[in-house]
Amino acid sequence: MKRVVVIGSGNVAEALAPAIARAEGYELVQLYARNRAAGERIARLAGCPYAGRPDGLAPADIYLLCVSDRAVEPLSRTLAFGDGIVAHTAGSVDLAALSPAIRHRAVLYPLQTFTKGRPADFTDIPLFVEASDPNTLAAIGQLARALSSRVQELGSARRAVLHLAAVFASNFANHMYTLGEEVLREADIPFDALGPLILETARKAVESGSPRRSQTGPAVRNDFQTRTRQREMLAAHPELERIYTNLSNSIWETSKKI
Amino acid sequence: MKRVVVIGSGNVAEALAPAIARAEGYELVQLYARNRAAGERIARLAGCPYAGRPDGLAPADIYLLCVSDRAVEPLSRTLAFGDGIVAHTAGSVDLAALSPAIRHRAVLYPLQTFTKGRPADFTDIPLFVEASDPNTLAAIGQLARALSSRVQELGSARRAVLHLAAVFASNFANHMYTLGEEVLREADIPFDALGPLILETARKAVESGSPRRSQTGPAVRNDFQTRTRQREMLAAHPELERIYTNLSNSIWETSKKI
Repeated sequence: MKRVVVIGSGNVAEALAPAIARAEGYELVQLYARNRAAGERIARLAGCPYAGRPDGLAPADIYLLCVSDRAVEPLSRTLAFGDGIVAHTAGSVDLAALSPAIRHRAVLYPLQTFTKGRPADFTDIPLFVEASDPNTLAAIGQLARALSSRVQELGSARRAVLHLAAVFASNFANHMYTLGEEVLREADIPFDALGPLILETARKAVESGSPRRSQTGPAVRNDFQTRTRQREMLAAHPELERIYTNLSNSIWETSKKI
Repeated sequence: MKRVVVIGSGNVAEALAPAIARAEGYELVQLYARNRAAGERIARLAGCPYAGRPDGLAPADIYLLCVSDRAVEPLSRTLAFGDGIVAHTAGSVDLAALSPAIRHRAVLYPLQTFTKGRPADFTDIPLFVEASDPNTLAAIGQLARALSSRVQELGSARRAVLHLAAVFASNFANHMYTLGEEVLREADIPFDALGPLILETARKAVESGSPRRSQTGPAVRNDFQTRTRQREMLAAHPELERIYTNLSNSIWETSKKI
């Protein structure tokens, strides 16, 4: 049994800790976090002990830093990891952010959005791994494969591109839902009217494998009449009108590239 | 049994015709479409006769115009509907687009994206109805309730707002998937890596009921360092960089409104 410590008390820690506790061949020996209340809650969820002081950090084979992007570097310099592998989980943070004083450095990046209180099933979540040396890569890859069937090696530079793509596909897509909600408020229609449409649009893009080809609507049809009318409807919201115009143009330009 | 004719051979006709054929209390007596190949295919799917010439239009209680936005008006002036109700299904088209020579005019707008070859389950699809008079409204409402559990009356002006919200939540969200795919190409990573993230982002927004509150990422955190680095990564794609900057600003502005 390999011993794992999860460090952090955010959404990634909350998602990963219980998954590791269940993973075959691995024992979650500790949840370490400065925030005591949040840390103890996740430790209870995962059924492992909690620690919150540097001298209480348990010996382990793998330490998973599930902390904010900016905390990776300072934390990697502060704690005494002994000879264990230290892996961070941040999509946009370079492997080199981990202190060079750590002998076995790695990254295990789960490409998913995690939410407090929402259990995550890792089986289908793509995990991207990277390490400072072949043995460490083998070890972090093994942990990743115990969690998910979709494991891939990816260097820091390509991982940064992947993280940027995720900003478009998740954060920006979610913002489009938010703007849809804002538009609906004009007509006093609750957001849940858009639910089936949002879910089907996502499923269609994923199942077809090409959102570009499955695009619909006035912009891709270059339906000038509808575009003009809809822009006029947004006259009271210059910010929304600008986004509407920019994205409609971008959809049309993109469609011509097919 | 009320007799229904579906007119059109696009995705809405393909989705609606089989659903009406199965609906209790309704008989799909004909699929009418100018495009013979597409029309016959949908008629086979729905198990009803096909017709494609104006003099072949069957007598019916309800005619559903499942045609493009621009075709609603001319088609409503061309065909001889007798005393039947004529309802169009276009979100952004006014009820008044139907010829005033038609006595019973209506709208049945399904808020969903339909795809050729993808069967649609109408049970959960929100249907918005409107009509020229109370009896027609009752009749189109009854048909809608035979298809879906989510039926609501909505006038043309509010329906236009709803359709605009759908452009944001579906077309524009899908465009964000497309741009994510474009970014991924830089790192030679296939689009399907984004699948679980896209689906979970959609589910989370819908289940939480508020995409605004569930927003994550560098923009809502106002993580200036990541934003700067990601903008630089897009330097070779000025169009993407502009969208990145505009939407990041918009996310940050929106987050402050909470």
